[in-house]
Amino acid sequence: MMEGKAIIGTDTILTRADLEALSPPEVRAAIRAGRWTGTSKRLALGREQANIVILPEVYALDFMRFCQRNPKPLFLIEATDTGDPEPKLSAPGADIRTDLPAYRVYRDGKAVEDLADIRHLWRDDHVAFLTGCNLSVDQVMIEAKIPLPHLMNEVAWPSQYVSNIFCRPAGIFHGPQVVSMRPVPKSLLVKVIEITSRFPRSHGAPLHVGDPAAIGIANLKDVDWGKQNTVGDDQVPAFWACGITAQAVACKIGIPEMITHKPGHMFVTDLPVRDSAPS
Amino acid sequence: MMEGKAIIGTDTILTRADLEALSPPEVRAAIRAGRWTGTSKRLALGREQANIVILPEVYALDFMRFCQRNPKPLFLIEATDTGDPEPKLSAPGADIRTDLPAYRVYRDGKAVEDLADIRHLWRDDHVAFLTGCNLSVDQVMIEAKIPLPHLMNEVAWPSQYVSNIFCRPAGIFHGPQVVSMRPVPKSLLVKVIEITSRFPRSHGAPLHVGDPAAIGIANLKDVDWGKQNTVGDDQVPAFWACGITAQAVACKIGIPEMITHKPGHMFVTDLPVRDSAPS
Repeated sequence: MMEGKAIIGTDTILTRADLEALSPPEVRAAIRAGRWTGTSKRLALGREQANIVILPEVYALDFMRFCQRNPKPLFLIEATDTGDPEPKLSAPGADIRTDLPAYRVYRDGKAVEDLADIRHLWRDDHVAFLTGCNLSVDQVMIEAKIPLPHLMNEVAWPSQYVSNIFCRPAGIFHGPQVVSMRPVPKSLLVKVIEITSRFPRSHGAPLHVGDPAAIGIANLKDVDWGKQNTVGDDQVPAFWACGITAQAVACKIGIPEMITHKPGHMFVTDLPVRDSAPS
Repeated sequence: MMEGKAIIGTDTILTRADLEALSPPEVRAAIRAGRWTGTSKRLALGREQANIVILPEVYALDFMRFCQRNPKPLFLIEATDTGDPEPKLSAPGADIRTDLPAYRVYRDGKAVEDLADIRHLWRDDHVAFLTGCNLSVDQVMIEAKIPLPHLMNEVAWPSQYVSNIFCRPAGIFHGPQVVSMRPVPKSLLVKVIEITSRFPRSHGAPLHVGDPAAIGIANLKDVDWGKQNTVGDDQVPAFWACGITAQAVACKIGIPEMITHKPGHMFVTDLPVRDSAPS
């Protein structure tokens, strides 16, 4: 925490290091003011970050059942009241229409535009779903001294692929799981599996480690989202379920409207990551 | 397990001890055949037991948000597809209309009848919700040698009360949490809290221990559901969130229709209780 630092209304250039040390409401205020449009890696480090899916209410019950049946890719952190853009439980005071660094809009199953603000698209029949995200465990990984590329290097990012592991269907929602690959030193693999298994809200343990072909990935160079990562001889590729699954499903089923975060540009909640038990 | 014992189609009188050793599909088949109409205590011991709430789809999204926001009383184990009485994930092959020992029907917020079978009430717009139940941890309590009255004595049962702790609302759903009291030896209280905290699907740790008045219970003799339990000098009353909360809420809001289990007569799922991580 940087107590007393006046973030809003100043001309200070914000860096990721600044935002890492801020509280979630301060990070969201900076984003809302247009002062941060980058990825959310390390922002308010140690707080739960969330994928966002906004749908018309007519699809909401099926999507909620879809999340409930597929908690590894889509652990449901919160579903807002219909028409209410405030996630009252996980981020009181926030506005889901303005507080993400970037949005992606899907229409008829195609990504049609990326936006900085979606107030003009929000309707009274919209429901916003917040689902778990891998970036939530970054602080845990840092404390455990796991040298993941995206934590060692500002421009690095996990590699995301459509796998051949399918979701359990619910209503119109069906399709493949997207996985997020990070190269892990072989000597730390058990430790990484052990640690991530303790965070079921943030995808938990990997879905798969080792041969990418075993889950339908022909070539690690062909990323569907994120960035390519080289896997060294002393490393093993580890694949976690990924919240982008909702976006892959939107494409698969051609849903008329789905508004999401732009991949990597997550919503920062107030929830401490360590507190993952229901209360 | 009692391998090879022909349960269905025999005239054998079933005892709780018989049913304790059976698999969940065998228990459900016996109940479906009308061969067990009692409480579900110890049935298929070690499997997740569930509270059941059946609602018209028009209320399902709000009720699902209500469960998601109140996981201690109402941890959502599964929501069926609309019109489908089979809980495909937690009890494949089961029929939620016939496989409970007893049902309770609420109309306009009043309990109007108890039934052994609800096939004649089921409609294409019904959704069944399965939520967590304290009886799920009975095997764990037995193994830990916690002398809870309902596990020591066939006729004993936990005491349930409407508390002054309120649920987080969702749509039309709001109201007080029901709590389930079991007397715990003072010397084992920490152990009981520690153990139950590991089972968040089954209400987790107690909401409260000690003075009943602190959560709005004037007199432990005035039970709202279940049976009275005497709390000895060497014991402390421990209060857990309880799935009957949904029934108290049905009364509070006067919902036109809610079909539930009769308290104590739960649905036995296939899920092993120890496997509480999402998968």
